[in-house]
Amino acid sequence: MAKPSREAISMASTSPSSLSPPTVPMELHVSNRQKLLKSLRQHLSNSSRPHHGFVLLQGGEEQTRYCTDHIELFRQESYFAYLFGVREPGFYGAIDIATGKSILFAPRLPADYAVWLGEIKPVSYFQERYMVSMVYYTDEIVQLLVDQYKGSGKPLLFLLRGLNTDSNNFSKPAEFEGIEKFERDLTTLHPVLTECRVCKSDLELALIQFANNISSEAHVEVMRKTKAGMKEYQLESMFLHHTYIYGGCRHCSYTCICATGESSAVLHYGHAAAPNDRILEDGDMALLDMGAEYSFYGSDITCTFPVNGKFTSDQSLIYNAVLDAHNAVIAAMKPGVSWVDMLKLAEKIILESLEKGNILVGNLDDMMVERVGAVFMPHGLGHLLGIDSHDPGGYPKGIERPKEPGLKSLRTARQLLEGMVITVEPGCYFIDALLVPAMESANTSKFFNCEIVDKFKNFGGVRIESDVLVTANGSKNMTKVPRETWEIQAVMAGGPWPLNRASG
Amino acid sequence: MAKPSREAISMASTSPSSLSPPTVPMELHVSNRQKLLKSLRQHLSNSSRPHHGFVLLQGGEEQTRYCTDHIELFRQESYFAYLFGVREPGFYGAIDIATGKSILFAPRLPADYAVWLGEIKPVSYFQERYMVSMVYYTDEIVQLLVDQYKGSGKPLLFLLRGLNTDSNNFSKPAEFEGIEKFERDLTTLHPVLTECRVCKSDLELALIQFANNISSEAHVEVMRKTKAGMKEYQLESMFLHHTYIYGGCRHCSYTCICATGESSAVLHYGHAAAPNDRILEDGDMALLDMGAEYSFYGSDITCTFPVNGKFTSDQSLIYNAVLDAHNAVIAAMKPGVSWVDMLKLAEKIILESLEKGNILVGNLDDMMVERVGAVFMPHGLGHLLGIDSHDPGGYPKGIERPKEPGLKSLRTARQLLEGMVITVEPGCYFIDALLVPAMESANTSKFFNCEIVDKFKNFGGVRIESDVLVTANGSKNMTKVPRETWEIQAVMAGGPWPLNRASG
Repeated sequence: MAKPSREAISMASTSPSSLSPPTVPMELHVSNRQKLLKSLRQHLSNSSRPHHGFVLLQGGEEQTRYCTDHIELFRQESYFAYLFGVREPGFYGAIDIATGKSILFAPRLPADYAVWLGEIKPVSYFQERYMVSMVYYTDEIVQLLVDQYKGSGKPLLFLLRGLNTDSNNFSKPAEFEGIEKFERDLTTLHPVLTECRVCKSDLELALIQFANNISSEAHVEVMRKTKAGMKEYQLESMFLHHTYIYGGCRHCSYTCICATGESSAVLHYGHAAAPNDRILEDGDMALLDMGAEYSFYGSDITCTFPVNGKFTSDQSLIYNAVLDAHNAVIAAMKPGVSWVDMLKLAEKIILESLEKGNILVGNLDDMMVERVGAVFMPHGLGHLLGIDSHDPGGYPKGIERPKEPGLKSLRTARQLLEGMVITVEPGCYFIDALLVPAMESANTSKFFNCEIVDKFKNFGGVRIESDVLVTANGSKNMTKVPRETWEIQAVMAGGPWPLNRASG
Repeated sequence: MAKPSREAISMASTSPSSLSPPTVPMELHVSNRQKLLKSLRQHLSNSSRPHHGFVLLQGGEEQTRYCTDHIELFRQESYFAYLFGVREPGFYGAIDIATGKSILFAPRLPADYAVWLGEIKPVSYFQERYMVSMVYYTDEIVQLLVDQYKGSGKPLLFLLRGLNTDSNNFSKPAEFEGIEKFERDLTTLHPVLTECRVCKSDLELALIQFANNISSEAHVEVMRKTKAGMKEYQLESMFLHHTYIYGGCRHCSYTCICATGESSAVLHYGHAAAPNDRILEDGDMALLDMGAEYSFYGSDITCTFPVNGKFTSDQSLIYNAVLDAHNAVIAAMKPGVSWVDMLKLAEKIILESLEKGNILVGNLDDMMVERVGAVFMPHGLGHLLGIDSHDPGGYPKGIERPKEPGLKSLRTARQLLEGMVITVEPGCYFIDALLVPAMESANTSKFFNCEIVDKFKNFGGVRIESDVLVTANGSKNMTKVPRETWEIQAVMAGGPWPLNRASG
């Protein structure tokens, strides 16, 4: 009796993953706090302000669905996660700027929590787990901070309020009963803390690398199992399963985009109104933009490949145009390089390829002036990546958003800095809503070879996206998936990945 | 080249599912609207009010995560889903009480939606898809409703405002610019519409049955693959994957509870602060409470089984106590039966078994008077199930919530009606936070055999949960999982399920 089933044995002996979830060192968040403290003290010194007061952040709360008691799976607010690494809802966190002490305030749970939701942990548990100086209850915030304050007058709070330049929403500063007993500074903290998040520490990079490793492996797994006749959401399900069961990734960085055939021209496909429900057909390209998150840190990876495992010459043309742009950008990346220039580099390479393929005709520089690149790639080239998949810090004070088509979609117009992780995601799409006007416009119609463009009417699009670290002298691609057409074809035909596992 | 890999072939030929997602007939929502209309007209007639005005509901909106542009996967608000079946965000829906006409108001999407989010569908698309009389844009609500209104004075709107008795939250009535041009009735609609949702139509039952079929199959799959050394969340991942890839279920009815060992005594385990992260040990029981949702309609199923596939005598004792209660309740269910009586029936059977097992001593009726059952089963016996996993309507006007321990946790104290789907989920848990006080209390200490109770200190708990339809003369269990200990052992040892597939 009770001997393992055949399935269980087969599963155990042929695990399709070589990975397992790493331990997360809380020193990561300690060092994030130290970075903020140093940066904030420097900022205060620069404007001759005293080193008094507290950074105070409010963590996220659990949300119910509409009026029901259905509780959405909680995910910590990202700034709070950055500084404290707390996975539970209902916390506040403070940093004493004078002493550097870190203080967590935990919710005081009702006695019946133990029956319904689990053991009520003592404050010492959170102090040890999150490596903070002190832990109190949220109803003790006022008393504790007043007692700890060593400056004169009302104690000063640095609260988090500032614009997210991707959403155009403002972060919500902490609120609690008795906050009127404090002086509040709503402007200093946000830009300083946001800038801390822009360049990643080695401990942060290790998590982003793991998210990349497990997501890369899952992409390969999906690539191998994709077949005509499947539904797009089945690819999503395989990805989510692989990253969760082998990688412990309960959250994704964003809703999976599993776009096939002409749907691959819809840049943010996969949402509730376009829920990955198309049936894959022989001859389709599949554009899969999927990335798992591990312990708050994310990945963001796009693979595009033919559903039947074999590129046609048209598919190769567009695919290699994008791949060449992707590779050229990564090769050119290093500290000091302008991201706007990188977008233009990618555009130029894609336009050049389209010209070689007879889709476009005419002078390349003229096309660049007329922004023809933005017809085929209306989105930016990539974005900062970290605790948010669109990590903040793309437009700090002094960096203006460009206004031209394509360029205005850039999520940052900064120069690269060592330690940035940024996605490199050029694409080339055949989108009627953009192509038709461009082919009719007096300024741009001359560039299009209409007969050839027509052949690509239902082609969809190609996007290739990797997560790239800016190093001291160049860059490092953290994403490990087959990229060359021959690599993709070999892997989809059952070949090993990585290649050197077999051939050394 | 491009021949399918060995994995792909093996996957195709041995699909572990016999199911595929059924087509959803929009007549389901047409009939829901007709039911409301009939019920509302009757209600108005009873209070001599004219049949004028509009039911007006606001559908759900997409939510971003905190200040970022991370968009949470949208799930329609449940009352709106019930009446209109709309999967997209940003809609309003109206029903003209005079004519019975149904009207959807779609958001007017900006031109660049076509580039980023997909084809902009004409209103005729929504009219056909959702089988409504008319579709306009949300900026036309005021004009259209004013034009359609045939009564005198300001047109009347019946808006949705009322208490959810599980969450204690109020539903939010529709809001739009120009609403002050209307008379508003905030009290009539909620109880009438809520009551419509209580008893299910055949079309609704078909979806709940599919959600049960695919979730039952997934539970069996998980049961077969569970082994000591795994982490709890790996069981969650298998369940989610099976119900999505084979059943097309993108949403779960609720966050999976994968509780093993002593964690199985935590009733709502699995949330962010207790995220299914324990490692399974040989000798543990696994309590898995997981249910998928298909086209808004859900399931809610709990299986409890030994991780190593073989019940010990202690495990059998507690398991069979709960199973006997589960079976007795289902056998006793029929229209007119009081749900409070069903809870007491379940409690009595469990107490009897605990007495036979020497855990309790003394007179059963005395134990019932002292509410000893609530020490072992602090939750209610079950809840209405439908578009919400805790479907509303448990406490309509005139039905009071009991106040005694255990009974006060009941999500309904109603008599059963034909067409109700209600979960039957007795449980028996060893929860220190309840046991210790009960064993110390002057009134109840005499019932406990402390030495034996101590043996069960880290036992955790057992819950068995099925979704049961109340029929004209009895009940029908919609959940199809192994329940007898020998069935579970046989399935975990590799035996077929359902049993009759092999033995006829």
